[in-house]
Amino acid sequence: MPSATLDHAYAVILAGGYGERFWPLSTMARPKQLLSLLSERTMLEMAFDRLDGLVPHDRVLVLTSADLVDATIATAPDLLPENVIGEPVRRDTAAAVALAAAVVKARDPEGVFCILTADHVMGDLDVFRDTIRSGLEVAASNDVLVTIGITPTHPSTAFGYVETGDSFDGGVDTSIPFHRVARFVEKPDRETAEGYLETGRFWWNSGMFVWSAASVEASFAAHRPELAEFIDTLVPSVDTDGFADALAAGFEPLEKISIDYALMEKADNIVMAEGTFSWDDVGSWPEVANHLPADDAGNVTRGAVSTLDAANNIVLSDGRLTAIIGVEDLVVVHADGATLICPKDRAQDVKKIVTELRANPDHQDLL
Amino acid sequence: MPSATLDHAYAVILAGGYGERFWPLSTMARPKQLLSLLSERTMLEMAFDRLDGLVPHDRVLVLTSADLVDATIATAPDLLPENVIGEPVRRDTAAAVALAAAVVKARDPEGVFCILTADHVMGDLDVFRDTIRSGLEVAASNDVLVTIGITPTHPSTAFGYVETGDSFDGGVDTSIPFHRVARFVEKPDRETAEGYLETGRFWWNSGMFVWSAASVEASFAAHRPELAEFIDTLVPSVDTDGFADALAAGFEPLEKISIDYALMEKADNIVMAEGTFSWDDVGSWPEVANHLPADDAGNVTRGAVSTLDAANNIVLSDGRLTAIIGVEDLVVVHADGATLICPKDRAQDVKKIVTELRANPDHQDLL
Repeated sequence: MPSATLDHAYAVILAGGYGERFWPLSTMARPKQLLSLLSERTMLEMAFDRLDGLVPHDRVLVLTSADLVDATIATAPDLLPENVIGEPVRRDTAAAVALAAAVVKARDPEGVFCILTADHVMGDLDVFRDTIRSGLEVAASNDVLVTIGITPTHPSTAFGYVETGDSFDGGVDTSIPFHRVARFVEKPDRETAEGYLETGRFWWNSGMFVWSAASVEASFAAHRPELAEFIDTLVPSVDTDGFADALAAGFEPLEKISIDYALMEKADNIVMAEGTFSWDDVGSWPEVANHLPADDAGNVTRGAVSTLDAANNIVLSDGRLTAIIGVEDLVVVHADGATLICPKDRAQDVKKIVTELRANPDHQDLL
Repeated sequence: MPSATLDHAYAVILAGGYGERFWPLSTMARPKQLLSLLSERTMLEMAFDRLDGLVPHDRVLVLTSADLVDATIATAPDLLPENVIGEPVRRDTAAAVALAAAVVKARDPEGVFCILTADHVMGDLDVFRDTIRSGLEVAASNDVLVTIGITPTHPSTAFGYVETGDSFDGGVDTSIPFHRVARFVEKPDRETAEGYLETGRFWWNSGMFVWSAASVEASFAAHRPELAEFIDTLVPSVDTDGFADALAAGFEPLEKISIDYALMEKADNIVMAEGTFSWDDVGSWPEVANHLPADDAGNVTRGAVSTLDAANNIVLSDGRLTAIIGVEDLVVVHADGATLICPKDRAQDVKKIVTELRANPDHQDLL
């Protein structure tokens, strides 16, 4: 489904997190998106690969922390170095979207772009690409903000939801259904989530969006005018020697606020594309392991690992050998001389160890 | 209690094992006796230190495997290098005692010696030294084989027992009671052990013995004549350039048999000295940990270890950091880039991992 619209299409991958829950494999210098968690390719490279045939390489932008720009360029050689943009401070997703909008607008005033993440595992990539492509076409020819809703497979309490209203005809030849959005809702409790699924009107909020630079800037002007001003101020400096200074000056004062809160919960021109491809957050080791092959006893291992009477463990070892005897449902990660051991159901709490290490001057080299 | 007898006293520390249960801290090149499990000093050095004031340094012999002689000398600088004797092949304790008897006899035909191990933790060292000293004196002036029996503190099923008969007067001025030995018995079941303790006649078999070179050779002549012949053949070569060749020629054909089975269960001139000092085998990590300080949650840690909601674990780490979250009663050992994790009650099975590694050509460097 080639389209002239796609000549103006950009993809922006948000890759600014640190992924503390993957410590000690993840560190400040080697965050989750630069890890090969699910395949030989890093999470960022997998996000990049998914765009194959949809957006040309030179129009794939990556937004990350300024201190990760070099590591990102080194780890993902397919990216153009000038397309890896470092945020001088952390300012959450609304500021990141505004920064992306400024770069896209400067390069192509008719530009449309999708906002993607490197945090998820996806399948059915043809469907994914059809969905994003349709989103780009709808966003190019309508003054709407497109969100990608994922067809829920179970009443998850880990995701926010998008409630849809009437169907939306964007005037585009596509098999992907679009709906007007009634509202965005936060992560629900189990009972509420079950109710959502029964209505058939709720989709998971994937954090993926598609819009034109013009539409998103107009929406910022209406709901967060300082972000529209930031875009206007930054545009003339894009791809000039003055960019870094202009970015530093304009970005630092911005409020830390998510794009959901800044725009999606306020704008009334939001439409949702049905995402029927498989999609899952892989926020901690047990979720990663769900997507990796296990041995007969349910152990997922990587590296040199020996098991004896051990079942349903996740063991990653970059060391000489990790041997486990008689344990179950543990996460064991050895990387760079540091070892983490916790039950699977405490894998969220790895973050607490990282927080503790950050507070300890002796342990900064482990982060 | 100085005595002219002690001018003929030697101490022989048997230090030939590998301590597989302490892998990966213990390896073929760095066996248990060369590890600092209980203090800054190695187990072998602690055994050596216990002899302070009892036997002069130059009469402390260590028997170990030939391949461990260099490491032993390097690790225990207080030992005289010529007193570290390498067994060319592994032949169990009867052959080791015969080898020790040959060296002692060659150096001093009136020599008496105690057989000690480096495998145990001991307290009340003044009492220990009194006991050994009395044993040396009794052995010097009587044709008996002295065994050191430990006053049992509980009906252990992990130790063999010595059953005593009448008291024995060795004609020596000592406060340590001696008894004639009725029999040696193997490790009992719990009920049998409880019965033993009720009689008041049973002591733990410590594996520590005292005898003169002459008496033990005579006993070998009666019960294992090939070992008496081995002593006679070896004596002329001791402390000559021909020792290694003579040892290799004589030692290799010897049967693998324990001193308990070769002599102690057969000889009728055995007496037991009551050992009232504290003594414990430390054969695996939980037993070692019993002798080390724990934090408020019962965790025994060494090295860089971080714990969160974790209780009663043993964690040793020579790496950058080992972090445990929400686990209980685990043994975690990280050494030389290898990691072991098992529940405390599976600590015996570490040996199985080592056996598995031995069978795997890829893992020889881990042993």
